[in-house]
Amino acid sequence: MEAGVYIQASCGGEGVCGKCKVLIEKGEVESFRGPKISAEEFGQGLRQACQTRILSDLEVRIPVESELDKRFIARTRERVVAGRKVSHQELESLVLGWCFSPALRKQYVEMEPPTLKDNRSDLSRLLLALKKLYGLEGISVDSRLLKNLPFILREAEWRVTATMVQTRMESQLGEYQLRGSRRTKLIQLEAGDTTKEHYSIVLDIGTTSVWGQLLDLNSRQTLAEASDYNPQIRYGDDVISRIVYSQKPGGLKKLQESVVGTINGIVRELAAKSKIDLARVSHMTAAGNTIMTHLLLGLDPKYIRESPYTPVANFIPPVRAEEVGLEVGEHVHLYTFPSVASYVGGDIVSGILGSGIYQRKPLTLYIDIGTNGEIVIGNSEWMVTAACSAGPAFEGGGIKHGMRATLGAVEDFRLNPVTFEPMLLTIGMVKPKGICGSGLINMVAEFLEAGVISPKGKFNVDLPTPRIRQGSDGMEYVLAYGEDAAIGADIVVTEVDIENLIRAKAAMYAGYVTLLQSVGLAIGNLEQVVIAGAFGSFIDVERAIAIGLLPELPLDRFLFIGNGSLLGARLISFCNEMLDDGERICRMMTNVELSESPSFMDNYVAAMFLPHTNLEEFPGVRARLAERKEIFTTETQRAQR
Amino acid sequence: MEAGVYIQASCGGEGVCGKCKVLIEKGEVESFRGPKISAEEFGQGLRQACQTRILSDLEVRIPVESELDKRFIARTRERVVAGRKVSHQELESLVLGWCFSPALRKQYVEMEPPTLKDNRSDLSRLLLALKKLYGLEGISVDSRLLKNLPFILREAEWRVTATMVQTRMESQLGEYQLRGSRRTKLIQLEAGDTTKEHYSIVLDIGTTSVWGQLLDLNSRQTLAEASDYNPQIRYGDDVISRIVYSQKPGGLKKLQESVVGTINGIVRELAAKSKIDLARVSHMTAAGNTIMTHLLLGLDPKYIRESPYTPVANFIPPVRAEEVGLEVGEHVHLYTFPSVASYVGGDIVSGILGSGIYQRKPLTLYIDIGTNGEIVIGNSEWMVTAACSAGPAFEGGGIKHGMRATLGAVEDFRLNPVTFEPMLLTIGMVKPKGICGSGLINMVAEFLEAGVISPKGKFNVDLPTPRIRQGSDGMEYVLAYGEDAAIGADIVVTEVDIENLIRAKAAMYAGYVTLLQSVGLAIGNLEQVVIAGAFGSFIDVERAIAIGLLPELPLDRFLFIGNGSLLGARLISFCNEMLDDGERICRMMTNVELSESPSFMDNYVAAMFLPHTNLEEFPGVRARLAERKEIFTTETQRAQR
Repeated sequence: MEAGVYIQASCGGEGVCGKCKVLIEKGEVESFRGPKISAEEFGQGLRQACQTRILSDLEVRIPVESELDKRFIARTRERVVAGRKVSHQELESLVLGWCFSPALRKQYVEMEPPTLKDNRSDLSRLLLALKKLYGLEGISVDSRLLKNLPFILREAEWRVTATMVQTRMESQLGEYQLRGSRRTKLIQLEAGDTTKEHYSIVLDIGTTSVWGQLLDLNSRQTLAEASDYNPQIRYGDDVISRIVYSQKPGGLKKLQESVVGTINGIVRELAAKSKIDLARVSHMTAAGNTIMTHLLLGLDPKYIRESPYTPVANFIPPVRAEEVGLEVGEHVHLYTFPSVASYVGGDIVSGILGSGIYQRKPLTLYIDIGTNGEIVIGNSEWMVTAACSAGPAFEGGGIKHGMRATLGAVEDFRLNPVTFEPMLLTIGMVKPKGICGSGLINMVAEFLEAGVISPKGKFNVDLPTPRIRQGSDGMEYVLAYGEDAAIGADIVVTEVDIENLIRAKAAMYAGYVTLLQSVGLAIGNLEQVVIAGAFGSFIDVERAIAIGLLPELPLDRFLFIGNGSLLGARLISFCNEMLDDGERICRMMTNVELSESPSFMDNYVAAMFLPHTNLEEFPGVRARLAERKEIFTTETQRAQR
Repeated sequence: MEAGVYIQASCGGEGVCGKCKVLIEKGEVESFRGPKISAEEFGQGLRQACQTRILSDLEVRIPVESELDKRFIARTRERVVAGRKVSHQELESLVLGWCFSPALRKQYVEMEPPTLKDNRSDLSRLLLALKKLYGLEGISVDSRLLKNLPFILREAEWRVTATMVQTRMESQLGEYQLRGSRRTKLIQLEAGDTTKEHYSIVLDIGTTSVWGQLLDLNSRQTLAEASDYNPQIRYGDDVISRIVYSQKPGGLKKLQESVVGTINGIVRELAAKSKIDLARVSHMTAAGNTIMTHLLLGLDPKYIRESPYTPVANFIPPVRAEEVGLEVGEHVHLYTFPSVASYVGGDIVSGILGSGIYQRKPLTLYIDIGTNGEIVIGNSEWMVTAACSAGPAFEGGGIKHGMRATLGAVEDFRLNPVTFEPMLLTIGMVKPKGICGSGLINMVAEFLEAGVISPKGKFNVDLPTPRIRQGSDGMEYVLAYGEDAAIGADIVVTEVDIENLIRAKAAMYAGYVTLLQSVGLAIGNLEQVVIAGAFGSFIDVERAIAIGLLPELPLDRFLFIGNGSLLGARLISFCNEMLDDGERICRMMTNVELSESPSFMDNYVAAMFLPHTNLEEFPGVRARLAERKEIFTTETQRAQR
């Protein structure tokens, strides 16, 4: 960690995932061999990093399968998927009532210098000029501004640029706040006319990665984009392990500092790429799930994890970015998207805002698939929401050779239906290192359609291929033999992996169904499915339907919006009026705790088949499976003849 | 300074006043003999501290005449004067519309713990309870509160006390701000019911001394009072020398830290005297002149001293006390009284508020006599104000044996009209050390009436007394010979001293007249004179009229209100509604720069006599002088016969 080297640590240092194996080449350690490391590996010097105590200076080799490659994270922005692609322009037109009116305002002011006849205070002079020139009244003033005020005014010969922000009276009570209650606050003063340099930074604080964009508040252009892994990954893959870590001594502080450090890096990168002076950045907007928002602000997420799952706050007053540790001007305020509940966060609110679902009639299912899957169902009249804990399978967690969607991950897969030999496509087109979540979905869909696995996810051991074999964890399919793999060992998909994927997709599907049932509706009522999130961007809709992760609906009803969180944050940066919409969305949403719903478990069990126990819900898949079976049978007979 | 020893330093270290003489008993220094130190003194080891560089460890004796005695500062609270004394109760009834409604509010809240059916955020739960129980809505929240919120709520079993403050939208534009624009902000949360412990601290930050009171916001009682010198005295007696010091490297910081340190001491003393826990103090209010307010908040007063004399700000948004360095809870806000102009500060606004002048018809002259004399003239319809630089004579500055009104200062004086021998009364009734301002007024009035000095302030050298003699600075009167004096040397009043007093009183009087003329009125139109301030409390009205410092009006038109600054601060602490009145007063007042008024110099020259060139304005004094002259002439003739 301290050397800045990323090591996979799916289990957060608990020692159970075995992902953090490293080779000790030199030096002395104290370690023990757990079940995730073989005697042979141990003999070669491999150790689980999290289970190893350093006793001297070391030379450590990070095995290739433990690496995360930062270069490939940027790839998640491409939408090379089935379903409807949405262009950048179109994305911003999904929401209605959008207008260009940033919360931040820069005004150039020229004043007459004071005289004995008019020796009002410097501040009064400035405010009077703002009133005369721009009709601005009742402005409050950040008292930090006062210290330099007389000097800036005189050095600039009474020609300055004032930056003002619209703040508001926060109400946490669930009522819709009137627009009239905004306040204008003077937060920065610059010598001369700097109105042409007026920037905002928007951030998506994801559990896995952090995205940032630098926006020009004059030209409305995105000047730069940057991203990085959320370094909190070191402390656990999912939000629950982060909460667990935050309860260790100093844990909360470490988690906050690590993500803030990464944001600072992104901010510097944005400034460098766009060649702007960071001092001209006036505002920051961040969207993240409830836990990421808590950790960013240093709020203790302890009670989010304990029933009845209460966050400290859903609506958080804007804070000064500097107080959080962000290295921007002391006048910069950070606005964080409000959350709905412990597991339905500001990222979802941001996405709902950006997609305009809350403004339109069609009944829409909005999903962000991931370890913590988030589901919203509704339209302009009502919305219900739920979070469902799908487990880490979609992100390669709990999968024997699972990995994130980075260099070397198998992401596409075809099966020769006769020889059962694989055709692999990896990210970066290099030797395979492992399997990412979308790759696994594609494999399982292929396996199912080719009859390699049963609807229960069990391998057909009668097939004439050596790739299906007994492995250390049960039956498995060899995706790549050692000589073909970057890791120098066989890469396999096991029945346990498939079962984990089935659990994950079943949780998501049961979530949709339970949420629909809670309002007396069913899958058939859905008129639109909006898929948000990095993972969603890579999904092949047809195959996701084939395994029962997505409901079977006509393909043109699916819409991919990519990073919904960043989308909403951009909108709010450009259009302050949208703030009200963001908060209105929170108040419209009714949160359903799936774990407390008696029907959820039934729906879950029913979804533990491929694609589903009730094939009525997947007529297309059923037909295709039947057709394929027939073909395969014929082919096989022909081959046997 | 660093040893915490007070040394008089009237000139702020410029080396011109000669007040800071110290005796070097041991050790090595580098120094030079200026005109203020005799060769004999220099030979004895006396040095001007401000002109001396320390070269080794030293033993230094502080001569008795250089000391300030803290014990006697408290004495300024007594009003042993002519004119109308005002009782404490009466003082608070001078202003109309006073009601008990502090800006700070404490409410006890009991909540139901969260359940799965109601797992709103902790903050929402609290705010909902405040709404349900007390009808409070649209509350904003200090984000600092969020970090401990979940723990306080749970440890206190959902029974807490919320402290809220009414803040406001600041307008610096001279308009009267509507009451409706207040905001309620939640600033503190305490476990259990602490509503019975609810305190406020009020402060008067004077150029010379700092006063504090601890108020019980439940019982409306003053629980304790404490005071101390303003330690900035070390850096100069008057506001101008403080501004000069603030411009030295690190000067502003030192000035701020020194006064903040003293306030912290006063705050601790208040807590100790009243036996309350400082954590229960919810609010602070401070009144001070514009320069003291700037220095307290760390605002640079540089341009207050340079024409056209502009302060940084007159209306200052409330700041968190902790940010200023005050050692109170981080939730405590400091409200500083708004100022009118560079030399008409919040202390005057506070006094005008407390005296209720702005609410009543009678034309009133409000004065605070001092180095920087402040004058307000007006009533409920209009007010004009001016500051006049009277020089330090009233505070013993620029007077050969001048000193502050502390132990050993001659404060009362009678003259035997035949022998011209003095009768002295000193503060503490000890051997005289020197002469304080009010003492000097009494002496000059006696001298004038006894014919010892002419209306121009020159000694009658023909009088048969050895006390009138030629001294090193010209003619002088020996008040006390060395054997009678605490300083072991003669204490004298010189013609230069008298001239300095005449200049000071002339500046004040010319100020009243010029200000009255600016609105087309004259002294005779005044229906009331309100005298505020520590110095004013000691003035003998008849003698002040006799020398022409106060206008000649019937004695029952004079009202002494003592520390007007503290009076207004108390009112605002108890009655938040009065905040509006304070700001309204600022906006009502028209500031007149006397130095820019062409008639001021004429009025000043006319006032450079005792009592005045135009004796029509002092008919009573004229009659008394004529009568006395007649008696003296008769007495003298009789004696000669």
